Amino acid sequence: MSKVPHRLYLSEQDLPGQYYNIRADMKTKPAPLIHPGTREPLGEEELAPIFCREVIRQELNNDDPYIDIPEPVQEYYRTFRPSPLCRAYHLERALDTPAKIYYKFEGNNTSGSHKLTSAAAQVYYAKQQGVTELTTETGAGQWGTAVAMSCAYFGLDLTVFMVQGSYDQKPFRKHVMETYGAKVIPSPSAETQIGRKIREEYPDTAGSLGCAISEAVEKSVSGSNCRYVLGSVLNHVLLHQSVIGLEAKKAMERIGEYPDIVIGCAGGGSNLGGLMAPFMQDKLKGLKSPYFIAVEPASCPTLTRGRFLYDFCDTGCVTPLAQMYTLGSHFIPSANHAGGLRFHGMSPVLSRLYADGVLDKAIAVEQTPVFEAAVAFAKAETILPAPESAHAIYAAIEEALKCKESGQAKTILFGLSGTGYFDLNAYAQYSDKTMRDHVPTDEELEASFARIPQ
Amino acid sequence: MSKVPHRLYLSEQDLPGQYYNIRADMKTKPAPLIHPGTREPLGEEELAPIFCREVIRQELNNDDPYIDIPEPVQEYYRTFRPSPLCRAYHLERALDTPAKIYYKFEGNNTSGSHKLTSAAAQVYYAKQQGVTELTTETGAGQWGTAVAMSCAYFGLDLTVFMVQGSYDQKPFRKHVMETYGAKVIPSPSAETQIGRKIREEYPDTAGSLGCAISEAVEKSVSGSNCRYVLGSVLNHVLLHQSVIGLEAKKAMERIGEYPDIVIGCAGGGSNLGGLMAPFMQDKLKGLKSPYFIAVEPASCPTLTRGRFLYDFCDTGCVTPLAQMYTLGSHFIPSANHAGGLRFHGMSPVLSRLYADGVLDKAIAVEQTPVFEAAVAFAKAETILPAPESAHAIYAAIEEALKCKESGQAKTILFGLSGTGYFDLNAYAQYSDKTMRDHVPTDEELEASFARIPQ
Repeated sequence: MSKVPHRLYLSEQDLPGQYYNIRADMKTKPAPLIHPGTREPLGEEELAPIFCREVIRQELNNDDPYIDIPEPVQEYYRTFRPSPLCRAYHLERALDTPAKIYYKFEGNNTSGSHKLTSAAAQVYYAKQQGVTELTTETGAGQWGTAVAMSCAYFGLDLTVFMVQGSYDQKPFRKHVMETYGAKVIPSPSAETQIGRKIREEYPDTAGSLGCAISEAVEKSVSGSNCRYVLGSVLNHVLLHQSVIGLEAKKAMERIGEYPDIVIGCAGGGSNLGGLMAPFMQDKLKGLKSPYFIAVEPASCPTLTRGRFLYDFCDTGCVTPLAQMYTLGSHFIPSANHAGGLRFHGMSPVLSRLYADGVLDKAIAVEQTPVFEAAVAFAKAETILPAPESAHAIYAAIEEALKCKESGQAKTILFGLSGTGYFDLNAYAQYSDKTMRDHVPTDEELEASFARIPQ
Repeated sequence: MSKVPHRLYLSEQDLPGQYYNIRADMKTKPAPLIHPGTREPLGEEELAPIFCREVIRQELNNDDPYIDIPEPVQEYYRTFRPSPLCRAYHLERALDTPAKIYYKFEGNNTSGSHKLTSAAAQVYYAKQQGVTELTTETGAGQWGTAVAMSCAYFGLDLTVFMVQGSYDQKPFRKHVMETYGAKVIPSPSAETQIGRKIREEYPDTAGSLGCAISEAVEKSVSGSNCRYVLGSVLNHVLLHQSVIGLEAKKAMERIGEYPDIVIGCAGGGSNLGGLMAPFMQDKLKGLKSPYFIAVEPASCPTLTRGRFLYDFCDTGCVTPLAQMYTLGSHFIPSANHAGGLRFHGMSPVLSRLYADGVLDKAIAVEQTPVFEAAVAFAKAETILPAPESAHAIYAAIEEALKCKESGQAKTILFGLSGTGYFDLNAYAQYSDKTMRDHVPTDEELEASFARIPQ
């Protein structure tokens, strides 16, 4: 019997009672959201038509390191949290590496990913404020499912704009959202002004998160007693997702471990941001020096090839401007099965940390090697990973193989943010070798950069 | 904070080291498998061309109450076991019942169900014997996925005959089995004599587990160094699944609970048989008197409307005869989404216990109310259940509502044997009200009974 268990579940009493706000410990704070016209920072009143007030306060709060998790949210968390910290003994054996590989598995809930942790909080805050209806967008479908589940539990109506490509590839995701009572609309749709405009400009588009965000925001602003919820990118989402890292750190402490390397896939940044937050706190305070790696798809290489600028968060240019790494809000990534990573921008928190060099490294990977890593992982560890999460697996394997070469027994922690149960068309394409890799050319990126507002 | 957690995970050290063999404690043993021609009981040598030897020994072993779980099987179990015992606080609140509802959740693995627990053992025994290739059948797809995962882990080849109806409804199940390296063939197929014969007799059939079993057995017997594995019905499968009940009992002991009522869905019987085994042991020994309820679909009412007779386990009549409740091996259930429950027979162990009145009650339920229960459960407890498991939810809710009426705070334990992530076409039909219920007429059943060998 091994000393460290394969799957370490903390008890319900170990659930964090507070979110950790990494901004409080950052020397250089992420830049505020600004108005695209006035270029002035946006305050609570300007954001109130779009977001719920508590969420806005959290978004703007760069000072308080800890924020209480409301008891009804904790009560909901208890149905799927704490999530397990897993030791990848079987993968280690398959790789014949001296490295110790750990992963924090967030997929054991019906949404299939970490997204439920922020959805629960945001829906609760909406209910508390008396909001009766929410809108949102979804890429791969995990976020939409997470919000649908939370709305079913707390009793709110929901409309989800689902990226057309995912809507077509993943009808099951639509069905599951509908089972939980949500209305699901493929995006770009004819139901919003922005959707109609995007369909005119790009008639063949498979959509993108950027488009879907525009539509969801437009619908929420035009509704009465309706607000919008976002599943990644923004500060308050990373705040909620800090639960992942807090649990991971506590579990590692319990077995006397600390990661040398922390790895996460990065689309909007909430998964990596949440996992790394409390470890990054140690680094910012000079207590420890873990090495952080962000992994993104080569088809949407925001950190590795983007620019650190103020840009819109959406394609329709209805959102505020955020200072972040961006490929330009008009960049529409070519088809890539990791729908949750197909976003042109990156969390301002992660962007700042990357610009400052404390988020050490970003790499971009093509999808065929990512699926190769995913299948090797699935066969050894039993869990079929989400294509998004498989980006982190790829990097973890790469680091473990470096350890094999050097003989170092490093401790690697990566985020297994979700399962791939709804991504089986992509796995089928990998199996029958019809999967294609897509990397934007420099010219394509330059054309997109040119449309970023100066 | 509630005293009993929402999700109770035992530690890895609590994994049972032995399977519990309920037959050792049954006064009347289940009848042996017999040869259809000679009507003589079958011994190890007669069964050896089909099954692995260790599995046959377990199948024939009515005496030893405990059988060691091999260490490599335990090592594999540690990636997904112990599974959680859940307290359904949120469902209890939604029902406003004084009952305490617990469920043992077996769906948190990629196969999506309890099936992986027997698959792991059977594949390991095959490997140990030097077998290099396995065949099996699958209905809903969980069993096939479980065997595919286990074969990927232990390094064996696998061919899966998948019930045509499920193959069409659930392409994702096929993809996931292929991702783990299995070959998947829709059944009835043109690849076996029996498949061709069934296609001739019933050209429009959507297949059934009975047909698929015939095909898998034929292929295994005709292969060299190939054996067949079965996911339910037989004694050794129930033996392996006793892990479910052993974990559930230990977890309940830890919180000072014991079930008044134990509920499981019953298709072939392995899920209910595994869950109830150690509680039934208490009843057989006169220590406790829990009440046991088996729940089956009204479209395939084996216990509630079948006959207790010797019959074939498959449609093609290639298997031995088993004494069990049966609708006749030529009974092909009408379309019902709970593919895992579409089997004409029932575990000889469960059949015996039901005939002897210690398995107290069986009920048959139509699928629309089953999905109604499933959706109510999903909204409260976050987990989207498999249609099979939802039969148990239906009965648990019924019992909890009786408690509400009587004011009794009974302790109910049911088996949540799997998730419904691959059953979303069925959920979509429920949502858009195109779901239909099907109940066989007495005449249909009589015609089927008439073909049972005398």
